[in-house]
Amino acid sequence: MTDHTSSYRPVPGVRLSAAAAGIRYQDRDDLALVAFPEGAHCTAVFTRNAFRAAPVVVAKRHLAVASPRYLLINSGNANAGTGERGLADAVASCAALAALTGCRTQEVLPFSTGVIGENLPLAKLEAALPTALERMRETAWPEAARAIMTTDTLPKLAMRRFTVAGRTAVVSGMAKGAGMIRPDMATMLAFLATDLAVDQALLQDCLRDAVDVSFNTITVDGDTSTNDACVLGAASTLGNEPLDDPGSPDVAAFRAAVEAVCRELATAIVRDGEGATRLVKIRVEAARNAAEARRVADTIAHSPLVKTALFASDPNWGRILAAVGRADVDQLDIAAVRVWLGDLCVVSQGGRDPDYSEAAGQAITEKDEIEIRVALGRGKAATEVLTCDLSYDYVRINAEYRT
Amino acid sequence: MTDHTSSYRPVPGVRLSAAAAGIRYQDRDDLALVAFPEGAHCTAVFTRNAFRAAPVVVAKRHLAVASPRYLLINSGNANAGTGERGLADAVASCAALAALTGCRTQEVLPFSTGVIGENLPLAKLEAALPTALERMRETAWPEAARAIMTTDTLPKLAMRRFTVAGRTAVVSGMAKGAGMIRPDMATMLAFLATDLAVDQALLQDCLRDAVDVSFNTITVDGDTSTNDACVLGAASTLGNEPLDDPGSPDVAAFRAAVEAVCRELATAIVRDGEGATRLVKIRVEAARNAAEARRVADTIAHSPLVKTALFASDPNWGRILAAVGRADVDQLDIAAVRVWLGDLCVVSQGGRDPDYSEAAGQAITEKDEIEIRVALGRGKAATEVLTCDLSYDYVRINAEYRT
Repeated sequence: MTDHTSSYRPVPGVRLSAAAAGIRYQDRDDLALVAFPEGAHCTAVFTRNAFRAAPVVVAKRHLAVASPRYLLINSGNANAGTGERGLADAVASCAALAALTGCRTQEVLPFSTGVIGENLPLAKLEAALPTALERMRETAWPEAARAIMTTDTLPKLAMRRFTVAGRTAVVSGMAKGAGMIRPDMATMLAFLATDLAVDQALLQDCLRDAVDVSFNTITVDGDTSTNDACVLGAASTLGNEPLDDPGSPDVAAFRAAVEAVCRELATAIVRDGEGATRLVKIRVEAARNAAEARRVADTIAHSPLVKTALFASDPNWGRILAAVGRADVDQLDIAAVRVWLGDLCVVSQGGRDPDYSEAAGQAITEKDEIEIRVALGRGKAATEVLTCDLSYDYVRINAEYRT
Repeated sequence: MTDHTSSYRPVPGVRLSAAAAGIRYQDRDDLALVAFPEGAHCTAVFTRNAFRAAPVVVAKRHLAVASPRYLLINSGNANAGTGERGLADAVASCAALAALTGCRTQEVLPFSTGVIGENLPLAKLEAALPTALERMRETAWPEAARAIMTTDTLPKLAMRRFTVAGRTAVVSGMAKGAGMIRPDMATMLAFLATDLAVDQALLQDCLRDAVDVSFNTITVDGDTSTNDACVLGAASTLGNEPLDDPGSPDVAAFRAAVEAVCRELATAIVRDGEGATRLVKIRVEAARNAAEARRVADTIAHSPLVKTALFASDPNWGRILAAVGRADVDQLDIAAVRVWLGDLCVVSQGGRDPDYSEAAGQAITEKDEIEIRVALGRGKAATEVLTCDLSYDYVRINAEYRT
């Protein structure tokens, strides 16, 4: 995987920083700040896990009553499963930053990622805030992207530039996430910013749509996290008239940029999946409806047998078929199902395609990027999910994470 | 795990044998026969995977039109995903045995377990039949139980004796299965026999009920197989009046014996789960209904993060909470959820129980058998599933299975 830290561009008016609070990790930054200028506003989407971590609850509350001036992000401790104490800690961390900066507590959104079930070491976090504030600058995206990493092996940054009313606008984003990743958000934090001025409802609409086709289509292990969040801030520093016409070319360009940044970050997360050695795209088509297509894609993507076979470069299409068969598709006609590895048809008529050879299949599963395509032969709906293989290292990383 | 091969008892009139056909494995038996006497009859339940393997399709057809005299079981090749050719091969294997024994083709039920997607080496299988037939005897349960193993590390046998009308009756059973195991049957074959005479409808009823509380409550990896089957044969050699009164004590004793044998075999399968180092019972209670309880239990049981933590003896209750939270329980009240490891309360009020200590949790997760109990605080429904941890060896076994 390429280190994408060079692929960001500053968003004028948006400053960032990183600092070492020693929350869990030593000798590295584990605290990041993002500051928006006055006049900026944000939108966000959060995990659907019923056990929402304390910072998620507090961030939603704050976002409902104020425009954020600061995002306060820590890694190493998720402040999840921490009950009332966790909520109080999350609010206290926001209050501490507010006191240092002169903003209101509700103008700070807290985000945490890391171990679940341990109390946030508030004193350590607070002690690092002055240093973090001293370091604020528009070019600190790479440092901030590193500070929010947990089991990630590389920071994740992406950006797109485009033209609005003769001016070059930018959408930059950073993300973290490697395990506990599945559709509908995961242990994944993503922060995007643009220098454009954008109507709030439109901003929200753009982010939701972009998340649906990016972060919500990736899965590493099927474990949806308690802390997921994705924030998009509009700094409004470009000087444009606020975008508000959904049908305009400017909005189309903005939508496309947000979606592209989200897709690039989502793909980077799967590539960096815990222990992942392969990026696997699963496309299910000719389904009766989108839900059915998604159910089949998810069943394949979450099958430990499929994922271990892919780790072994084993074109074990029998395991793919078995996963399709248990995906609860009403009255599935086996003989109508076809499966491809890349462009190679491996299954037709309920069994191995007559032209398929194991050697040809193996040549495809040995690649770093593999596409599995399944046609159900029932309709016109299609979907895609991105996942990775299941390796020894996934077990090692997750068995050793706390010890 | 104890070797349970000593725990069987012959079922008078039911003969078994094992032979080496060289289908996939060398230097071991991979073919087993079970013969029922004239007057016996059988019932069976099969996988719900839409991709039913050829032998499953053929066994169902044969069972619908005749009382089986022989079960013909091979390991090493599942004859699944093999299309029309697979169906023809399955029928041909039955015909070959029928020709050698003088029974009808439909009086033979075929069963296969092993690699999916390769054609059954019919000639090898047929060549081993004469030897297998020569070896038929009532005491060959252990040999047959070994012959049907794939990634199993130990044969699985169980039996119960009980009294019916002053006579000692027996239910004996053997099973195989270690991976691709999940509720609603998996790569699991189980064969039970009794010397009792039992009404056919009652026999079927007893088997279905027993499977529901045993094989259908176990899961290793969530991958339901294409080949699962469980057969119960009534040899009718004891000389009793056929059991037909569902309310009678004799039927109760028989039901209990079938259920006990199924439970013992199911537990043995989970204990022998691919790479398993721990047996994990997950009990979900105080749910609004059984479906909700089961969904929560399955989500915990299938969570790679929970399973890798258990492998590491890590009492990582945060991962359990996160699994509960994503199990799609409508309007779950986090504060009402409690979680125990064994008898130790670890979570209450949405966070770590005040009396919980990591050391006490670790002492429980270091054991070979772990119980996770979750109370949802919503109602009175409860369920239990059995599963195991996720270890390096699961990855090794499933990454190397074909290579």
